[in-house]
Amino acid sequence: MASFVQRGKKIVAIGRNYAAHAKELNNATPKEPFFFLKPTSSYLATGGAMEIPTGVVAHHEVELGLIIGKRGRDISQADAESHVAGYTLAVDMTARNLQDKVKKQGLPWSAAKGFDTFTPIGSFIPKTSVPEPHDLRLSLKINGITKQDGTTADMIFRIPRLIEHISSIMTLEEGDLILTGTPSGVGPVVAGDKVECVLADGLGKELDTLDFTA
Amino acid sequence: MASFVQRGKKIVAIGRNYAAHAKELNNATPKEPFFFLKPTSSYLATGGAMEIPTGVVAHHEVELGLIIGKRGRDISQADAESHVAGYTLAVDMTARNLQDKVKKQGLPWSAAKGFDTFTPIGSFIPKTSVPEPHDLRLSLKINGITKQDGTTADMIFRIPRLIEHISSIMTLEEGDLILTGTPSGVGPVVAGDKVECVLADGLGKELDTLDFTA
Ligand SMILES: [Mg+2]
Ligand SMILES: [Mg+2]
Ligand SMILES: [Mg+2]
Repeated sequence: MASFVQRGKKIVAIGRNYAAHAKELNNATPKEPFFFLKPTSSYLATGGAMEIPTGVVAHHEVELGLIIGKRGRDISQADAESHVAGYTLAVDMTARNLQDKVKKQGLPWSAAKGFDTFTPIGSFIPKTSVPEPHDLRLSLKINGITKQDGTTADMIFRIPRLIEHISSIMTLEEGDLILTGTPSGVGPVVAGDKVECVLADGLGKELDTLDFTA
Repeated sequence: MASFVQRGKKIVAIGRNYAAHAKELNNATPKEPFFFLKPTSSYLATGGAMEIPTGVVAHHEVELGLIIGKRGRDISQADAESHVAGYTLAVDMTARNLQDKVKKQGLPWSAAKGFDTFTPIGSFIPKTSVPEPHDLRLSLKINGITKQDGTTADMIFRIPRLIEHISSIMTLEEGDLILTGTPSGVGPVVAGDKVECVLADGLGKELDTLDFTA
């Protein structure tokens, strides 16, 4: 599944999976998981240049990504881990001003989340390198200043629950990416910014890095 | 592009593109096009059986589909036709009760639109067989009774405008499907129903049929 960027057909992104992030945007903590889709045309490989369209306020959301390795529908929590091939470090870029507008109007989030280059991603990390995905450190700096620094221990809905929920609605296929939500600290990325993200294990060992410019 | 079901990575579906349909759901007529994404895991080939999940009110929306044949971003209206490989007859099935709920909450439409089997589709129709895509008849019957019967002449935003709009946000790729909106007459499909759709040209000649059971 190292080729998930080429092979994968969908990106399923969970909203509000960290209580501190839900709160910072004045949203209620969800009672069950919810998700939106991003197109795979929004991928940006590490080292790349993000495009921020004119008039868009683009916010960073650093997230742990799960790469699906085995197709499945109605996957139980007990079986969920067997469907994960590995992980990646990702940023769910969001046109926050457009999202705020469509939320008020009851319209879809797809454009606000779907611009080209709005899903920067790192390397494929095989699951054998990640013994405990619920004890990882996610951090993001802009121009050397830390903006997000959270732990996957704070997820409201843990990985098996997310896989159970999504697959109760749609088949998960090889190469699909699940974004698991962002910790607090989201904010704007503007032209000229250098963004650097790190995924580390519970002991502080780096598992992957991801950087891009705007 | 006859293999769009296997090759395509996204389904981009336009909302409220027929005034009579916007009105029947008490929605305003949009001032510019908007869209949502459906996963390709929701495809159902003609002749198939739709799954309606427990508690879901599933509405039919018969639509003209455009199959992209050439990758592009920021496609002009003048160039739009050169990116279309052909057409298909499709139904954008919608969990209307879930959609109504998330609209009120400002949440994404992705689950309401994304269940497995919620995008029944017909054959690939090469564009050489369709000289005027804005003069096609779209109809849908349930158990022999006509529920939808509209013409693509009534689209609020025509095909070049839709391609221009979507590609101003995201790259369109070979095999992607664009659903162009539904005429009025949407309503529920329930277990045991037989659904039959026809796409015909302006003279009434059948271009394709699509049927499924629920
Ligand atoms: Mg996010
Ligand atoms: Mg997709
Ligand atoms: Mg529709």
